[in-house]
Amino acid sequence: MDRFSVTYRIVADDMADAESRAANIALEDTVEIPRDVVPSGYVEDVVLGRVEEVVQQDDHVFRARVAYHIDAVGRELPQFLNVVLGNASILAGVKALSITPNADVLDRFPGAQFGVAGLRRLTGRDSGGYVCPVIKPQGSSAETLARLCYLTARAGADIVKEDHGLANQDAAPFAERVRQCAEAVNRANAERADAGEATRSLYFANLGGHGDQVREMALHAQEAGAHGVLLIPGLYGFDAMNRLARDPDFTLPIMAHPSHLGPYVLSPDHGYAHGMLFGTLMRLAGADISVFPNHGGRFGFSLAQCEEIVQACRGPGPGAAILPSPGGGMSLDRLPDMMRLYGEDCVYLLGGSLLRYGDRIGDAIREMRSALDG
Amino acid sequence: MDRFSVTYRIVADDMADAESRAANIALEDTVEIPRDVVPSGYVEDVVLGRVEEVVQQDDHVFRARVAYHIDAVGRELPQFLNVVLGNASILAGVKALSITPNADVLDRFPGAQFGVAGLRRLTGRDSGGYVCPVIKPQGSSAETLARLCYLTARAGADIVKEDHGLANQDAAPFAERVRQCAEAVNRANAERADAGEATRSLYFANLGGHGDQVREMALHAQEAGAHGVLLIPGLYGFDAMNRLARDPDFTLPIMAHPSHLGPYVLSPDHGYAHGMLFGTLMRLAGADISVFPNHGGRFGFSLAQCEEIVQACRGPGPGAAILPSPGGGMSLDRLPDMMRLYGEDCVYLLGGSLLRYGDRIGDAIREMRSALDG
Repeated sequence: MDRFSVTYRIVADDMADAESRAANIALEDTVEIPRDVVPSGYVEDVVLGRVEEVVQQDDHVFRARVAYHIDAVGRELPQFLNVVLGNASILAGVKALSITPNADVLDRFPGAQFGVAGLRRLTGRDSGGYVCPVIKPQGSSAETLARLCYLTARAGADIVKEDHGLANQDAAPFAERVRQCAEAVNRANAERADAGEATRSLYFANLGGHGDQVREMALHAQEAGAHGVLLIPGLYGFDAMNRLARDPDFTLPIMAHPSHLGPYVLSPDHGYAHGMLFGTLMRLAGADISVFPNHGGRFGFSLAQCEEIVQACRGPGPGAAILPSPGGGMSLDRLPDMMRLYGEDCVYLLGGSLLRYGDRIGDAIREMRSALDG
Repeated sequence: MDRFSVTYRIVADDMADAESRAANIALEDTVEIPRDVVPSGYVEDVVLGRVEEVVQQDDHVFRARVAYHIDAVGRELPQFLNVVLGNASILAGVKALSITPNADVLDRFPGAQFGVAGLRRLTGRDSGGYVCPVIKPQGSSAETLARLCYLTARAGADIVKEDHGLANQDAAPFAERVRQCAEAVNRANAERADAGEATRSLYFANLGGHGDQVREMALHAQEAGAHGVLLIPGLYGFDAMNRLARDPDFTLPIMAHPSHLGPYVLSPDHGYAHGMLFGTLMRLAGADISVFPNHGGRFGFSLAQCEEIVQACRGPGPGAAILPSPGGGMSLDRLPDMMRLYGEDCVYLLGGSLLRYGDRIGDAIREMRSALDG
């Protein structure tokens, strides 16, 4: 295939209107000029998007497949998203549903460095769902947060994840917080190894600071002994994540957090389909784990939308399968149901409700383990 | 005021439900733990968001004002947006309408370096709307694009803006394209000066490449002789723009492009109000000019939404007043109407339709000038 394609949902009056809107998307996301002034030759033949198919799906709802040449992209992820849904994100009634990459796209954006298989290796956990406490709240001192890290890691957490709101506030500045939390998890891991345990905790530090400090923060976390990083592509850009994933000096897995991305999926008429954003695009951008809000929690995702995300994370390509990570107001008693739904290649987040255990938070981790294994 | 506040539109069953949802936003965007486990003292008293007011606005529609302390933010813009609408962006039926900054916010995010007053000085145009052709399409060679720059600048364009789709593609790689376009505009400016003209063209180079190269690209453009840069905060992050605006080595104005930001405003139930995103947040992030799609073009913005954007760009604070810049499928014959609506402190974009003039594109620039002045 000399082109990759994007399938859009289009709200239109009739088939003629739908075809016109599809042609407009093809123009808008590439040359952005009226069709009659597109220069013949290279621009018209290669750069201009091409409508491949428009089909009616429902009353006033159509699906259109538009194919793009990699020459409209170049090599950088921002321009890739510009082509996929740049100006078209502002058109009324246009939503990107899925992408069919070609070899050019996969060559430039090969996907996760670790993914499902890599996380089995890094944690030493051969099977079963991953227990993942979230360390918070912001406003706590680095010592307090590090103590939570130690207690949850020591009790058997697979991943110890910082809250995405732990940025670089004075209460626990990034560099010092990460140093203390990494030390705490590594101390717990040493004790677990001494006790003959085959598994270990991975500490994921949240990269909170300026956008142009992402690499510096990630390398600091790595040097401090962290085992992964959490990043918010909705604030730092998908390219920031992709650059980390492709950086030869950075060798840790990446967890993507959905903060600030809600409006891209919540409307049926705009943005991205849930699976495309939290599955396909996260994979292309290099995430190893994709956090999303579970259905039935505080957020507005349906069961079907969550299943679509999981399928897009673990299905065939692009790149390695990655781990879905449902969270958001979950509690211990929901874990068995979630395990039946999401299966073992899944990172189970539990945050605020763990704090009710106080100093006995290790008990909560062991209960999470039992609930997932039981 | 020891706190800044954000006003949200909330869809709720009744007042009790609305109050509960507002309290949830205050938790979600700061501590992200259940209310009953918020630690007393500093976290509860300072870090936790505080609901100040909830009023009913319409059937099932409420407005809630939530106040936040700067300590929940720290100093970086990503965490500021995390507090304003991070996880809350994923809550069903929550939209941020406006922000009331306090001194802490204005101290950290003082706004535009140039704005309305600065652009008068830089262009030498004392009054009247700004004529701004958009240079495109992508796929053209650097030579072809530079020739369009020269012809439009020579004919009196105030701002010569690159299309946001001119990234770093092989047809016209960033560094070489910017060098040639800057040279072309500066040559035209020299000829205009020789002819006794008091005004000059400002060439705005589109920063297209990797997110972590934004500063490097901006400084390259500056050294090459560009007079401003175009940046897409929806792809590179608002912080990338803010860092440029605050960079002591970078001394040019910044134009923000709305690509990929559509889903944040298109739904009445999610994201940001038009004026908050394309006015207030652009000002806080340091944009001098904010591009948005004009009503009646290819995009779905209404007249009232466009007026809201203009008011938010030019109204009192935060920071200096900035220039709104409507575009998107405009044509010469709509300019007089637009001028009556938007007035003279406005950058009038005209893109693809100019290409119909071919080598006589300078005539189109002169017609734009007449349409705005007449």
